Order: sequence, then C-alpha cells, then structure tokens
Amino acid sequence: MNEHADLPSFDVHIPTRVLFGAGRLKELGVVPLYGKKALIVISSGSSMRRFGYLKQVQDLLGSRGIDSVVFDRILPNPILDHVTQGAQLAREQHCDFVIGLGGGSSIDSAKSIALMAQNPGNYWDYIHGGSGKGAPVPNGALPIVAITTTAGTGTEVDPWTVITRPETNEKIGFGIPETFPKLAIVDPELMLSVPSDMTLYQGFDAFFHAAEGFIATAASPVSDLFAARSMQLLQKSLAAAVRDGSDLQARTDVALANTLSGFVESTSSCTSEHSLEHALSAFHPNIPHGAGLIMLSEAYFSLFSEKIPDRFIELGRIMGMDVDQAEVSERPKLFVKALRAMIRACGADTLKMSDFGIREDELEVLAANARETMGGLFSMDRYALSDAECVELLRRSYR
Amino acid sequence: MNEHADLPSFDVHIPTRVLFGAGRLKELGVVPLYGKKALIVISSGSSMRRFGYLKQVQDLLGSRGIDSVVFDRILPNPILDHVTQGAQLAREQHCDFVIGLGGGSSIDSAKSIALMAQNPGNYWDYIHGGSGKGAPVPNGALPIVAITTTAGTGTEVDPWTVITRPETNEKIGFGIPETFPKLAIVDPELMLSVPSDMTLYQGFDAFFHAAEGFIATAASPVSDLFAARSMQLLQKSLAAAVRDGSDLQARTDVALANTLSGFVESTSSCTSEHSLEHALSAFHPNIPHGAGLIMLSEAYFSLFSEKIPDRFIELGRIMGMDVDQAEVSERPKLFVKALRAMIRACGADTLKMSDFGIREDELEVLAANARETMGGLFSMDRYALSDAECVELLRRSYR
Repeated sequence: MNEHADLPSFDVHIPTRVLFGAGRLKELGVVPLYGKKALIVISSGSSMRRFGYLKQVQDLLGSRGIDSVVFDRILPNPILDHVTQGAQLAREQHCDFVIGLGGGSSIDSAKSIALMAQNPGNYWDYIHGGSGKGAPVPNGALPIVAITTTAGTGTEVDPWTVITRPETNEKIGFGIPETFPKLAIVDPELMLSVPSDMTLYQGFDAFFHAAEGFIATAASPVSDLFAARSMQLLQKSLAAAVRDGSDLQARTDVALANTLSGFVESTSSCTSEHSLEHALSAFHPNIPHGAGLIMLSEAYFSLFSEKIPDRFIELGRIMGMDVDQAEVSERPKLFVKALRAMIRACGADTLKMSDFGIREDELEVLAANARETMGGLFSMDRYALSDAECVELLRRSYR
Repeated sequence: MNEHADLPSFDVHIPTRVLFGAGRLKELGVVPLYGKKALIVISSGSSMRRFGYLKQVQDLLGSRGIDSVVFDRILPNPILDHVTQGAQLAREQHCDFVIGLGGGSSIDSAKSIALMAQNPGNYWDYIHGGSGKGAPVPNGALPIVAITTTAGTGTEVDPWTVITRPETNEKIGFGIPETFPKLAIVDPELMLSVPSDMTLYQGFDAFFHAAEGFIATAASPVSDLFAARSMQLLQKSLAAAVRDGSDLQARTDVALANTLSGFVESTSSCTSEHSLEHALSAFHPNIPHGAGLIMLSEAYFSLFSEKIPDRFIELGRIMGMDVDQAEVSERPKLFVKALRAMIRACGADTLKMSDFGIREDELEVLAANARETMGGLFSMDRYALSDAECVELLRRSYR
C-alpha cells in the first residue's frame, strides 16, 4: 500500500500439507489422498527403482486399493515433450491424481503434467515469458502429491515448475494456485542415497532460494523467518551432509532448510540470479542448477551488497558474522565472506564455468537470454541491473 | 517417529490465504470469494456498525454483486445457542459462505456456524471433551472468511473455535480442517479503534499462544520460528500500542505478532495454561481471556521453567535476555523476568483475581473444571501437572 510504504504489507498462502521427518513415507498408506488411481512421475534414471522408493510407494498405494501407472522419462532439466506425454498418459489411464517422486525435476514435471491432464492445447500456451502465449489456465490441475528424495528445490511446498523447451533454449518457471502440491512428504531417510555432488548442488540451490528471497522486493517478515533459518541450517549442516551422506542429523537439517526455502519461494521470490543461472543451464544442460548458482553467487551478491547494504547487514547477522564489531563500510560485505567460507567448506570453490563448456565469448548471449526468458525475476531485484552489469557479472564469475 | 526421537518430525498445514497490511480490507472487493451470498457474523456490541466496518464490508461485497445477511448476537464469550441460531439463519437464507468480522468471538462463531450450517444435530454432538459427544463431522463446513479487527486470538489463521455452553460451565475448543478460514484479512487500520484495555488483553493472549506453543510437546522447528518472532514483536510494541492506540506502526507489529501466534496455533498447540484460564472465564465470564492468562502466567511459567529448563533458556534468549552472562541456575528464570517486565510496561501488573469476583475457596473447583473440559491440553505439557499442582498454581496466582 503506497500510503504506508514503511509498513509491511504481504500475502501468505501455503496450502500444502507437509509431513516432515525420518520414516514418514510410510504414512502414504494412511493419509487422505485424492482418488483411486495415481500417475507416478519419476526420472529416466534408475535410482527410484534401484533404491526401492518406487516399489515402496506403489506398495503403500496398493495396500489401500489405489492403482498406479508410472511415467519414467523425466530428464534432469525436464522438457516440454515429456509434459505433453505424461499428461496424455494421465488422461488415457484416467488418473485421479499425480505423484511426483524424486528430485525437483520429477516433482516439477508432475505439476506440469497434472496441469496439462486437465487443460487443452500445448503447455507453452499458458507460459508467461519467452515464446509462451500467457493464456489463462481454464481448468486448474489434478491434485498433486510431492514425495521429495532430494533437498534442493523446495518445489514440494511451492506452486512453481520449471520446464525447458529445448528447441528455443527456453527454461521458464510457471505456476498457478492448483500447482501447489496438496500433500508433501519430506522424509530425510529417502535422501540418504543422494550422492555427494548432488547433495552439494541441491543444498546450495536451497540456500540461494533463501538468500534471494531475503533480498527480493517481495520479501516479507514471514518469508524472512523462513529464509533466515534455512540459511542457518545449511551453514551448519550442508558440509557435513556432503562429507557423509549417511549422517541422518545433517540430512534432516538440510531437508528442513530445503522445505523452509520452499516456503520462501511461496512467500517471496527468487531474484535475477536465478534468471542468469537458467540461461547457463538452458544453453549448457550439463550444468547442475546449483552448480551454476554457486559459480554466479560471489559476484552476484557482492554487487547487491553495495546497492542494498541494509539487507546485507541483516544477512551477515543471520550467518553469525560479528557485524557490530566490523567497520561500518565492511558490514554489508560480511555475508559474502560467510558465503565464501561455506562454499569452501563444502569443497565447491573449484567449480569453473569453463569446465562445463561455457565460452567467454557467449556471456553476452547468456545475459540477453536471462532477461528474455526469465525477465520477470529482474523486477524482484531491489536494484535494477543493466544489461551491461549482467554481462560484467557473468564476466567476473567466469573462470 | 520413535526410532528417531532426537530428530524433528512434524506436520505443517496452514491453508488459509492471508492478506496482511494496512488498508487491505478494500481487497475484499476483488479477491476470489466463495459464492453469491454471505452470512456476516458480528458481535452483539455496536462497534462494527459504529466504526463503519460492517458497512465497508457490505459495500465491498455489494460492489461485486454479493448479497449479505447479518447475524449480530455474538457475546464476548460466544455461546452454543448463538451457533445454533446463526447456522439456522445461514441455511434459511441459503448463504454460500460465512464472514466472521470482528474479534476472536465473532470469527470463532463464524467457524462454528459455518460447520453447523452444513451438518445435522447439535454442535455439542461433535465436540471432544466435557459433555461433547465427539461424533465425526460428516459434511465439513461452509467456506469461511475471517476479517479480524483485533489482535488477540490468531483465530483468523487457525482452525480452532472456542464456544461456551453456559448451562454446564463448559468452554471448549474445537476444529476440523474445514474450519480453517479460506481467506483472512488482517488490516491493522481496523485495529486503531480497539480500546487500550482490550489491546492489552488481546496482545497478551497472542503472546501466550506463542509462549505456550513454544513449550508444548507439539512444538516444531517451524512453529518455533513463528512463536519467537511473535513474542519479540509483542515485547517491542505491545506497550506502545496500549499507550497510544493510534500508533499504526505499533498496531502493525502487534497485528503481525497475532497472525504469527495464529500460525503457532496451527503448527503447535496451547498448553494447560489455556485450560486453566478457560475455567476461570467459564465460571466468571466477566474476565477477559487475556486478563486471566496474565494473572496465571507468572506462577505457570515459573513452575515450568523448573521442569523444562532448556526450553526456558531458549525463551530467555528470544526475549533478549543476556542468558550467557547469567549464573547457570538463573538462566531458565530469565524468561519470567522478561515477562514480568513486559506485564509491568503494559500496566497489567495490578490485575487481581479477586477484583473479578474469584473467591479463594473455589480454586479447587476451577482446577478440576480445567481438566474436565480442556483436559486435552494437559497432554501438550512437557511436564505432567498433578491436580494438587494445578490448585497450588492457582493459589500462587491468587491475589
């Protein structure tokens, strides 16, 4: 409200029912669900079968008389064609609800499939940004259950889904109220099997959801609570989870941080760091999203620490830095110092864009793509980045 | 989960959409609502009409073609008969949804009325505890919109409703998933009209929802975030709001604290302090709920600070006490010290049970009533109070 610009004004809406805790997957056998037949969406990799998670889910559903069909083609950066195919399968098989089982790619795909199972035309008809047509979604989505086996995107408690359209190099986020999962099961025991490098990348994705949500224009006193605790838990336990994947205490902290950062996604927003990273991994699909963010983060947050020092002084405090003892001019810089220490503690300070095949001569194209396809997030920044600043930021991040 | 007793395991489910901020009532004219005709539930007092809030709500609804009927009999401690009458009116008038406009009593009544508008029999058939029959609720409830004009109960973002059955001296809380308001509007401008004494009582009600939620067995890392910030905001701004009701900054802090304490109600629980207070105000309806809590609080939290010192050390930290500098044996006591200072700063240290007509010879009856009618909350305590301890606690609180 303009007349009270100094006072908080914000929305909170997180309708998802969350079951959090080690061993809670088994409650899928008893919690209220949404029909007699489920489409289970999993990745094209073998892990959901290999670790027995798919069988557990099917058995729990079967024990209560719920039939299920599996769609198992989802790629790490999920693509439009698989949304179309999954939705067709859901319609053909008369599925009543959709279960996303796995990491962010499977859960995001479950959301988009649930939407297209109920709506006509092509998914890109409804997308805002890039070549999307931005049409209103007439029929909502099938009910969605998110069972996350990673701690990274927080997508189990937000309405957002990120799908790539490979032929146009577009990787775009989208969501409607009905793409909030109705139920999310966050069971850290399912995360014990995540390899060290993915634990690292996904954990930092959660961290940057929180950090960006904290500096976004959309931040509120409620999203700040979630963001602060998410960052603190990751600072405390991410390195331990990366080092020893069987450490259930560390896994639980990281899982909780991830769920909290999903709440941040639902109450605040990402900023342009995510737009820039989406451009990197749209052009170079071999880049894990979290790795892209890590490589961008020092330059990105350093720039913003100069532009919005007050928020960064708060961020420094959240990260346990002794802000009050520092020189006034140094205070906004302490967050990046803490971030750098955390990246080093997790062994991620050796990541280089050139190792992922990014060439220095394409940075301008990447900067332009970030604004074309995910331009909306730039409006969440408290300082308006110019195109030249985006290129410069990529250049500083380049090694 | 028993096998991981040291690790957090909890649910989060707060489906209410919250619009928070000064001036946001006007969005009632544009947000998605739930039908063509609303029952508006308000208190039997004149304030909703006098301050123009009822007309504003009716005009905003009318501007979008929504008809409304008013039920205006609700008492400060709302009673069963008015639930029955309001539900009858909603059915006769074919209302599609129910708006609770006012304080906790109007919003709680709106919830119970919305439930009984959809279900057969008597409301007490569904109540658990006391003489309630504990029957399952077959048909949910009409959609509920909560527009809170006070900062006290947090009921706008939780499923709970407290109704009194005067003939049996029972004041019992109840809720089902469908009694979560679908929409809550928390507009601190509507709170500028709350008199000083009610600001005080309601603000402390919010404070104790947070403090009890923090020490309850049901507390989780998520409810702790809400509880801590709620207490901090009240410690910072309640005295200012009590002193100068026109201070919109202080009102906003207190309103936010109240919404956060409602989130605590939805993610943790009250403890036996609320059972004890409900007994006081069931037998002495002239006692404002918050006043009853204030009079009980010092003895209550002192007792628990001895039984569960670790949680109280955390509470002391939350209240800004220099816990680490204190003697180890003193650390758990610092919360009560901060609470006492806050009660004094708000001018509430002169409240006496005898001034409200409580006689010392009825304390045993009150203690017994607390356990009979709200016994469930005793199971939320981390230390099991004996009947004798309850009486002793009331005796220490008695002046």
